[in-house]
Amino acid sequence: MQQNHKERTVPPTTIRRLSTYYRVLTALVEDGSTNQSSESISRLTGFTAAQVRRDLAYFGSFGKRGVGYAVNPLKNRLASILGITLGWKIGLIGVGNLGRALLAYRGFTEQGFELVAAFDKSHAVIGESINGINVQNIENLAATVAAERIDIAIITVPELTAQAVVDQAVAAGIRAILNFAPKQLRVPTHVELSNVDLAMEVEYLSYTLSNQPPVVATRIRGREHSDRNV
Amino acid sequence: MQQNHKERTVPPTTIRRLSTYYRVLTALVEDGSTNQSSESISRLTGFTAAQVRRDLAYFGSFGKRGVGYAVNPLKNRLASILGITLGWKIGLIGVGNLGRALLAYRGFTEQGFELVAAFDKSHAVIGESINGINVQNIENLAATVAAERIDIAIITVPELTAQAVVDQAVAAGIRAILNFAPKQLRVPTHVELSNVDLAMEVEYLSYTLSNQPPVVATRIRGREHSDRNV
Repeated sequence: MQQNHKERTVPPTTIRRLSTYYRVLTALVEDGSTNQSSESISRLTGFTAAQVRRDLAYFGSFGKRGVGYAVNPLKNRLASILGITLGWKIGLIGVGNLGRALLAYRGFTEQGFELVAAFDKSHAVIGESINGINVQNIENLAATVAAERIDIAIITVPELTAQAVVDQAVAAGIRAILNFAPKQLRVPTHVELSNVDLAMEVEYLSYTLSNQPPVVATRIRGREHSDRNV
Repeated sequence: MQQNHKERTVPPTTIRRLSTYYRVLTALVEDGSTNQSSESISRLTGFTAAQVRRDLAYFGSFGKRGVGYAVNPLKNRLASILGITLGWKIGLIGVGNLGRALLAYRGFTEQGFELVAAFDKSHAVIGESINGINVQNIENLAATVAAERIDIAIITVPELTAQAVVDQAVAAGIRAILNFAPKQLRVPTHVELSNVDLAMEVEYLSYTLSNQPPVVATRIRGREHSDRNV
């Protein structure tokens, strides 16, 4: 009944692959490259060339037969599709070990995001400055979200308080949430929620380990030749 | 040329969805549920019922027409497919803020993994005990990996040292790596590498924010009725 293969919206997995293409194209631009085929993007990302073409086809026609993709324009177009050029501002709630690690994470700035505020309820950390960001009392959340025009919240509070904190963030006008608490959270339909489930990544590795041929066989070098589509 | 839609291996995205099904089924078992339709799994996970059926079909035939899926057997089968039942052991390398946060993360143990060792090169943290785990000198890596039979390494070292540390882990016999350093790393073909790119998750939110209809329109409650497939 719902086996409609012509999806009207772009699948989330395609968007995550766009991020990967964007990183690879950024590196290629820095290296002075001007044109690349879907095959070479395939080699650099690990996705098949057909997958690269299908993903990009959602957003128009980019490549030219025999010439490939123009690296710099495609990179800029992907930045625009991903909204990176819009300079979204981020607030972080929960300054424990994980919160501190994320406040120091250079990756956000590198991709054009601005981590502008941090919040906690503990007076042991309120007032502390981490990577140039002053930790505020969470009571200031609504006022700061409005004043700084923050749209994205990163939630790094313990599981037990996560839902209450998310409700507070939504009430403060936050429109997108990246949640690290290992808990299913409820948000209204106008708010986007993305969960980082760290155990899920380990489960993926566990799956690959559990379904590998014995180590001896995989170490035979000839096996690499059968991986020619990668 | 490579548009062969009959994939011989299970796509990584399917494996990640299996993790989600597994969590939902675990909660259902705890609630005493015995049978569920793909439609109800769809409602609980946000994936379409067709997607649920396609994903599970990779591993055999589970559901019965009119009866649905037997919750507990399906949950146990997924645990087995994901290799959760095998009790993989994990070592963590790099005891900074992120490393400390992961050493305290309950999600790994809850899913049946054992974080058994932590390593660092800094004498400021070597010998410290975090969540019952003693931080060892990274010089002990190979000996401990062999003695404790560790297969999975979590890498939480700074970008600059990440490749050297991964090389060390591979030489020590590690077969799967979860990397948090924002850097493309090289591993031999017999080692599985999974990168957690935190900026990528923020980019996904940025994409959804950038492609949302204006806030006023999305807050009209009637819009929810058009989301009936979710």
